[in-house]
Amino acid sequence: MAKIVTMGEIMLRLAPSGFERFVQAERFDAVYGGGEANVAVSLANYGHEAYFVSKLPKHEIGQAAVNSLRRFGVNTAYIARGGERVGIYFLENGVAMRPSKVIYDRSGSAIAEAKVSDFDFDKIFTGAQWFHFTGITPAISDSACAVLEEALKAAKRHQVMVSCDLNYRKKLWTPEKAQQIMRHLMQYVDVCIGNEEDAEKCLGYKAGSDVTKGELELSGYENIFKQMKEAFGFKYIVTSLRESHSASDNGWSGLAYDGHEFYHSKNYEIRIVDRVGGGDSFAAGFIHGLFAYKDDFKKALEFAVAASALKHTVLGDFNQVSVSEVETLMGGDASGRVQR
Amino acid sequence: MAKIVTMGEIMLRLAPSGFERFVQAERFDAVYGGGEANVAVSLANYGHEAYFVSKLPKHEIGQAAVNSLRRFGVNTAYIARGGERVGIYFLENGVAMRPSKVIYDRSGSAIAEAKVSDFDFDKIFTGAQWFHFTGITPAISDSACAVLEEALKAAKRHQVMVSCDLNYRKKLWTPEKAQQIMRHLMQYVDVCIGNEEDAEKCLGYKAGSDVTKGELELSGYENIFKQMKEAFGFKYIVTSLRESHSASDNGWSGLAYDGHEFYHSKNYEIRIVDRVGGGDSFAAGFIHGLFAYKDDFKKALEFAVAASALKHTVLGDFNQVSVSEVETLMGGDASGRVQR
Amino acid sequence: MAKIVTMGEIMLRLAPSGFERFVQAERFDAVYGGGEANVAVSLANYGHEAYFVSKLPKHEIGQAAVNSLRRFGVNTAYIARGGERVGIYFLENGVAMRPSKVIYDRSGSAIAEAKVSDFDFDKIFTGAQWFHFTGITPAISDSACAVLEEALKAAKRHQVMVSCDLNYRKKLWTPEKAQQIMRHLMQYVDVCIGNEEDAEKCLGYKAGSDVTKGELELSGYENIFKQMKEAFGFKYIVTSLRESHSASDNGWSGLAYDGHEFYHSKNYEIRIVDRVGGGDSFAAGFIHGLFAYKDDFKKALEFAVAASALKHTVLGDFNQVSVSEVETLMGGDASGRVQR
Amino acid sequence: MAKIVTMGEIMLRLAPSGFERFVQAERFDAVYGGGEANVAVSLANYGHEAYFVSKLPKHEIGQAAVNSLRRFGVNTAYIARGGERVGIYFLENGVAMRPSKVIYDRSGSAIAEAKVSDFDFDKIFTGAQWFHFTGITPAISDSACAVLEEALKAAKRHQVMVSCDLNYRKKLWTPEKAQQIMRHLMQYVDVCIGNEEDAEKCLGYKAGSDVTKGELELSGYENIFKQMKEAFGFKYIVTSLRESHSASDNGWSGLAYDGHEFYHSKNYEIRIVDRVGGGDSFAAGFIHGLFAYKDDFKKALEFAVAASALKHTVLGDFNQVSVSEVETLMGGDASGRVQR
Amino acid sequence: MAKIVTMGEIMLRLAPSGFERFVQAERFDAVYGGGEANVAVSLANYGHEAYFVSKLPKHEIGQAAVNSLRRFGVNTAYIARGGERVGIYFLENGVAMRPSKVIYDRSGSAIAEAKVSDFDFDKIFTGAQWFHFTGITPAISDSACAVLEEALKAAKRHQVMVSCDLNYRKKLWTPEKAQQIMRHLMQYVDVCIGNEEDAEKCLGYKAGSDVTKGELELSGYENIFKQMKEAFGFKYIVTSLRESHSASDNGWSGLAYDGHEFYHSKNYEIRIVDRVGGGDSFAAGFIHGLFAYKDDFKKALEFAVAASALKHTVLGDFNQVSVSEVETLMGGDASGRVQR
Amino acid sequence: MAKIVTMGEIMLRLAPSGFERFVQAERFDAVYGGGEANVAVSLANYGHEAYFVSKLPKHEIGQAAVNSLRRFGVNTAYIARGGERVGIYFLENGVAMRPSKVIYDRSGSAIAEAKVSDFDFDKIFTGAQWFHFTGITPAISDSACAVLEEALKAAKRHQVMVSCDLNYRKKLWTPEKAQQIMRHLMQYVDVCIGNEEDAEKCLGYKAGSDVTKGELELSGYENIFKQMKEAFGFKYIVTSLRESHSASDNGWSGLAYDGHEFYHSKNYEIRIVDRVGGGDSFAAGFIHGLFAYKDDFKKALEFAVAASALKHTVLGDFNQVSVSEVETLMGGDASGRVQR
Repeated sequence: MAKIVTMGEIMLRLAPSGFERFVQAERFDAVYGGGEANVAVSLANYGHEAYFVSKLPKHEIGQAAVNSLRRFGVNTAYIARGGERVGIYFLENGVAMRPSKVIYDRSGSAIAEAKVSDFDFDKIFTGAQWFHFTGITPAISDSACAVLEEALKAAKRHQVMVSCDLNYRKKLWTPEKAQQIMRHLMQYVDVCIGNEEDAEKCLGYKAGSDVTKGELELSGYENIFKQMKEAFGFKYIVTSLRESHSASDNGWSGLAYDGHEFYHSKNYEIRIVDRVGGGDSFAAGFIHGLFAYKDDFKKALEFAVAASALKHTVLGDFNQVSVSEVETLMGGDASGRVQR
Repeated sequence: MAKIVTMGEIMLRLAPSGFERFVQAERFDAVYGGGEANVAVSLANYGHEAYFVSKLPKHEIGQAAVNSLRRFGVNTAYIARGGERVGIYFLENGVAMRPSKVIYDRSGSAIAEAKVSDFDFDKIFTGAQWFHFTGITPAISDSACAVLEEALKAAKRHQVMVSCDLNYRKKLWTPEKAQQIMRHLMQYVDVCIGNEEDAEKCLGYKAGSDVTKGELELSGYENIFKQMKEAFGFKYIVTSLRESHSASDNGWSGLAYDGHEFYHSKNYEIRIVDRVGGGDSFAAGFIHGLFAYKDDFKKALEFAVAASALKHTVLGDFNQVSVSEVETLMGGDASGRVQR
Repeated sequence: MAKIVTMGEIMLRLAPSGFERFVQAERFDAVYGGGEANVAVSLANYGHEAYFVSKLPKHEIGQAAVNSLRRFGVNTAYIARGGERVGIYFLENGVAMRPSKVIYDRSGSAIAEAKVSDFDFDKIFTGAQWFHFTGITPAISDSACAVLEEALKAAKRHQVMVSCDLNYRKKLWTPEKAQQIMRHLMQYVDVCIGNEEDAEKCLGYKAGSDVTKGELELSGYENIFKQMKEAFGFKYIVTSLRESHSASDNGWSGLAYDGHEFYHSKNYEIRIVDRVGGGDSFAAGFIHGLFAYKDDFKKALEFAVAASALKHTVLGDFNQVSVSEVETLMGGDASGRVQR
Repeated sequence: MAKIVTMGEIMLRLAPSGFERFVQAERFDAVYGGGEANVAVSLANYGHEAYFVSKLPKHEIGQAAVNSLRRFGVNTAYIARGGERVGIYFLENGVAMRPSKVIYDRSGSAIAEAKVSDFDFDKIFTGAQWFHFTGITPAISDSACAVLEEALKAAKRHQVMVSCDLNYRKKLWTPEKAQQIMRHLMQYVDVCIGNEEDAEKCLGYKAGSDVTKGELELSGYENIFKQMKEAFGFKYIVTSLRESHSASDNGWSGLAYDGHEFYHSKNYEIRIVDRVGGGDSFAAGFIHGLFAYKDDFKKALEFAVAASALKHTVLGDFNQVSVSEVETLMGGDASGRVQR
Repeated sequence: MAKIVTMGEIMLRLAPSGFERFVQAERFDAVYGGGEANVAVSLANYGHEAYFVSKLPKHEIGQAAVNSLRRFGVNTAYIARGGERVGIYFLENGVAMRPSKVIYDRSGSAIAEAKVSDFDFDKIFTGAQWFHFTGITPAISDSACAVLEEALKAAKRHQVMVSCDLNYRKKLWTPEKAQQIMRHLMQYVDVCIGNEEDAEKCLGYKAGSDVTKGELELSGYENIFKQMKEAFGFKYIVTSLRESHSASDNGWSGLAYDGHEFYHSKNYEIRIVDRVGGGDSFAAGFIHGLFAYKDDFKKALEFAVAASALKHTVLGDFNQVSVSEVETLMGGDASGRVQR
Repeated sequence: MAKIVTMGEIMLRLAPSGFERFVQAERFDAVYGGGEANVAVSLANYGHEAYFVSKLPKHEIGQAAVNSLRRFGVNTAYIARGGERVGIYFLENGVAMRPSKVIYDRSGSAIAEAKVSDFDFDKIFTGAQWFHFTGITPAISDSACAVLEEALKAAKRHQVMVSCDLNYRKKLWTPEKAQQIMRHLMQYVDVCIGNEEDAEKCLGYKAGSDVTKGELELSGYENIFKQMKEAFGFKYIVTSLRESHSASDNGWSGLAYDGHEFYHSKNYEIRIVDRVGGGDSFAAGFIHGLFAYKDDFKKALEFAVAASALKHTVLGDFNQVSVSEVETLMGGDASGRVQR
């Protein structure tokens, strides 16, 4: 298994239990999560030596965030300690026609105020095989963006493969600023993950006017994926495809392009217990799949889609599933029979 | 927004958590609710100056009932304090083929023993634009019925519009007594809300023999609505229409008649988290809709149906949704996509 | 109503709440259950004088297991007290494509080490009309098997009808050992309950090669049921039929054979809250049905299927439903309308 | 061990968890309890064949009350089923200088409306050795009082010893009515349990003017106990003695008189987890002690005091302690060392 | 009763339940609190028309903070809505030798960024009799300080009495900045509340060198109170006096000075359930006491001390006690006997 | 900080919440703990590189045990995976005069069936400075004892200091067997930890007849410590001293002997939240103290006593306190003042 590094922000997630609304809550379930941290946990669960790099305050809330990662096998040796606050997001679970809601309270977090000198990237990337980040990290703050670019340079110095989940966040920046920065960062990226909206907002590629529902949607994706490949020379471009029937029921599949061939995975009709982290579990699944299936990007995509389909049944941001559970589902057994 | 008055009983609701059955419960979730109180909370959530009029004991359980209303913005200044008990109902949540169960324990409650002298209705209705009650209030006790009629007379003196949700409750009275009283009270009512069973048990109108499933059901409603209009001169007659596929899945729509035209709303297939208060959220939605859409009763009905569809995803008797959430659903977005 | 005796193991079941995974659990919901104990509780709920015979330690965990049975009306006078441990099983609830998981931790339990001298079977069976056991009891240990055979001999001495739910458990024994013992024990059995897998693993009857999905599956069952009838002379052979669409949604029906006629019950599409004990609730329903409907095995089967369909909505191993609830569903009302 | 019968009301107790106040509660812990029911559970825990006689509704809340008794080994065969409601009391736990609060909501309960014909007392008392009631039962309603007197007559017909815990409840009746009835009922009583206030309010005996704190208080008790002995011929008169330092800390001892000698028990300084049912656990302890120590009333009193001291550490109305736990404390070991 | 205005910050308090440490928490109990808000709730509980003035975001967490105040009767009509975040503090409950811990996460809250134009102070103070603030409000931010001074000027224009609880917070400012601002603001203050540390850090008065434990400590207070009186002309200067034996047990009394006489209240030995808000409940008690006892400052102090002694038994920042509960304790009954 | 290795069993601890008794529990709080694991967590919290060596099943309950250690920074790289079960203990919390109860269910656990070949001790002890075990490990099973001796030999080969907490467990072995084995193992031990009972049951040294309460008790300890020093040549002999006033209140101090001098620490009067693991936190504190204070055994003892005094306020087996928290208490601040 591989040494894989991810870097970004981990936040305290506060959610009323079950289907309570925010205004009814007398208590919040507390877990920790964030795009790259979620990927690291998935990869640790699959047996990789996964590192999460970030900055967290020295106080007990910062420590609890570190502990949440250690508990599930992520190596936290390179998390810098300092700063004032752990970013927070409040989550209200949706159901049926009522959507989930997220209220962010993340400005001024320790990672947003981190400096390049907080990290020794040459040490961090020694022996590493993969580096993963999302479009959230450069959006957090200018200094976080600077730290990230240092990491990317070091990754390239150490011949580390780089994946990026574009993940456009409209609360953090504008499309203009996103494109200015993200287009620049794409020079370091080998595997690009992102849906139509991300491609448009972060990179400026808009799926053509013939993009409508169903199959034609895929042709829109093919159109922009080809342009992205040309512009940035990605090895793979992938996206998950979500059809939101309701907050409780979604269709779920994936699309991958290796510069030659488009591959659309099996589609799952999923029932949602917790959809936060679904995209991250998809990214982690694709990374693992490339390692496990030796660059067979179609099998990697099927692993990614099955892993993330299962994520939607798991509480919390972290995807708590094993390789064998994912492979059972990939293999076609969605019967849910009791395992005694 | 309008000053709106509702009057009736608010009860302590005791429910085992989740899907526990009564005989398994070691703990009850405690909320407060009752037809008119539920309407008041909805209207406060929509920005109206909503008053709930009732009587509650001075002890802490009575105070907690008052607080539950204040918390969500209902004005409780006209709740008389005194009497011995807060009415109680026990609720067991159903699921799939197992129905929800309600055990009432409400006799002897403070409002059932209230007197006309407990209230100053001229003060209460000064400046008010709407008064809402349900068929439960006159059924509680003879004195509650007398108090209600005083309120209705005062409402009329103050040119207040009056709506009534017929809400037949077989544990509280017989069809004979219900008709004797309710037919009499209809003289004060402008907007009548009630389904087929209510119309039959409370007013004596039975949908004709050609009433069967599907479209024909609507013709049965049209038949009795016309008779009710003729007999009582209502401005609007409306009903929600529920198709119970199971305790978890229902079809949900509404029908309204303005004396000229019948309007059948959009139908929603809803998944049920908590269905108690569904009818009340429908009534509140229709009242708000008439204010917000300036007597466009079709839009009011669509608002009522969407609001009450959402209610079925909200725990407790009270519908905790905002105007913008309802209007998003009315506008056709039932996708449940996360709102970040 | 009848005096009915069941004998076997009751275990402490430890389950994370809701949809939590084992590795996330900070707390376990604790109930008690086991094949024959579950049957006894169902029968007590239906009004029978139900006895559960077993052995449990004298300590408080053993006492809590006894209390769980007394609470729901099972007579525990013949539970021997002694031994060291209460068997345990850990249960993780599945949902959608993620299956439920069971981890057994039952070896060395008090009943596994019980001796014939712990029980006075002539006293136990005095006045009894029915004895029920499952294929789990003889699999627990050689001594449990010896105790069971003593019980069966006594049952026969007292002209007690005997039912057996074959219930093959691969963690407890091999097909070879199972067949050696179970074929021998069938001499005492009047009513045999078991699905295809049980019939093959416990008795050695394999449904023929033409058994595929749908109707043909039934012909496979008919084939082996006929052979089983011939070999062991059972009065009735019955099985529940589960179609696992997912961990949350199943099709559910039953098949019964009285030596003359095959009867396939109504099919229910069920949504699962807790599927453990589903088979036991089916067995108990069939036993009750034979008493209640005076050996009309078709009505007994319909009762069994409706009872166990409802079980899937009830938390815990025990089926907490009444005769009237089952008969309402049998009668065709699956609408789940609120019962006030 | 003996067959012991108790009769009275069992209520649903609803308490906010921990130290929450009523107005903060979103949830109530639900247990069942009542003077005579509490005594029955204690006696069942000590190994007696304990019966609780009452009337409870047929619905599920009534059933849950029955189940709470069965769970802990009380025989419920003679509980009549019918009526509308289970009496309720709300309990707020006090701590330190803040007292516990009880809000009763018990009028109109099934037992308050029970009739003599609901019970077959000759059957109930066949083979019985002891009958226990409290002064609450005759205070509930006139019909409950009539039923009780029938029970007392039957008890005497069957040579059953009778104990009464006077338990004056000012919310249920006045001292005048209490004395009129209770003085009459004392003719059936062999063992009278009650403190100074009970003796005054229920029987009209007031401790003399020289009664002050400390030892002199005992002389006041001696004074009235002698008068009570003379007036009613009791075999034993006993009382627990509570010094309320605060809601959390009390002194606790007992005083008994056999017509010849006064015996003041050891005093315990107790820390309170749940004080409801403390007096009932004292009464049960004294009854058990008379059986276990063959009428050595001093040892019986020490057992009663130790048992009820332990009760104050047990949640709920029921005293969940064993004979050996009580005897360990009686024997002087209050060290609380872990028992492994 | 009086119209009383308070102004400041209300925060979301997140606390692990019971005695859990931060690093163990999987869930946080969520209540809302803050110095001036706590005072407002106490005063509403005592029957005053209490207003809390602040600024809170429009989102649901902001709304929940508003609702927490409405629930307990505080008028929230003058809370401005806007800004990004609700300040947060994390609270770990201490016990015995382990102290409670608070981690603040409040920078950038809506009130910290409020402007004078967010409030109409002339409207707010019309008809008001009292204004209360703490030293936390001017420390939050320069703009909050400016808003506060506008409020103070308006209060004086409207002849409103002003009380200030000095409440030095070392995480928010330095002694230098505190003194510069607080000494200036004292011109508006009639009643000054604060202990030795507050007097030194906020106003620059240091208790002399002869201040040691016991009585002499009081002479130190007398010394500085006299100087403060001279410098600022306060009508009353008061302080609570806490002796911290441990995190669970404290001594608790108060000292007041009216320019003529020093009065040291009764001392209570208190057991602590939740000590946050203890000082605020003291301030509110003194304000109420002055109204209720018509400026008898000694009785006001006894009310303040008893009210705040009780607060330590109440969960959350808000003191949920009634006038009659406080007066019972003031009257000497600390026995904690059950109130039925 | 040092690399420190501990070896033994970690169990799943199942405890009813708060003060519930076993027979009342519907739910168990689940944490993991065991003598040596508890020591490892304490040492990780103090900043050491702490390893816990054991064997645990591959299933999810085994994984959860591993995760509980990783979460708090213990290195689990040398935990062998295999076997069937995780040992369990049930814990009922005592209070006041009611003692805590432990029911063990640990036979057949993975570590009890571990083999020498499961571990590579030369790798494990490379670079290590300390090895800690308790008398529980050799008592678990003969094979666990054999594994332990291999570990001890390897420790000595690598010049690692060894500490042993004698910890006699009467449920696991007899004094005869304990002495036969433990006396033999003492050849490897440098620091011996154990109280009077341990010394007698494990090593055969009985404190003389002049040992009574108070100071003389210490002279009994001095007597046997001298003999133990002579017999086994320990560098240090230490014990904690507990005075059990009740299950809630204890006196707590320590005694240490370095072959020259006896040192009795400060005594703390402690209030108990959770006393399990108290002895382990003492051992860990002494080990850390020797490192931190460079073999000043008196300061080490004070650290050990303060650390373990704090442990009694922490839920779970693991002591969650930091060096600075312990040193604050050592330094004399037991006031429990809030830390903001």
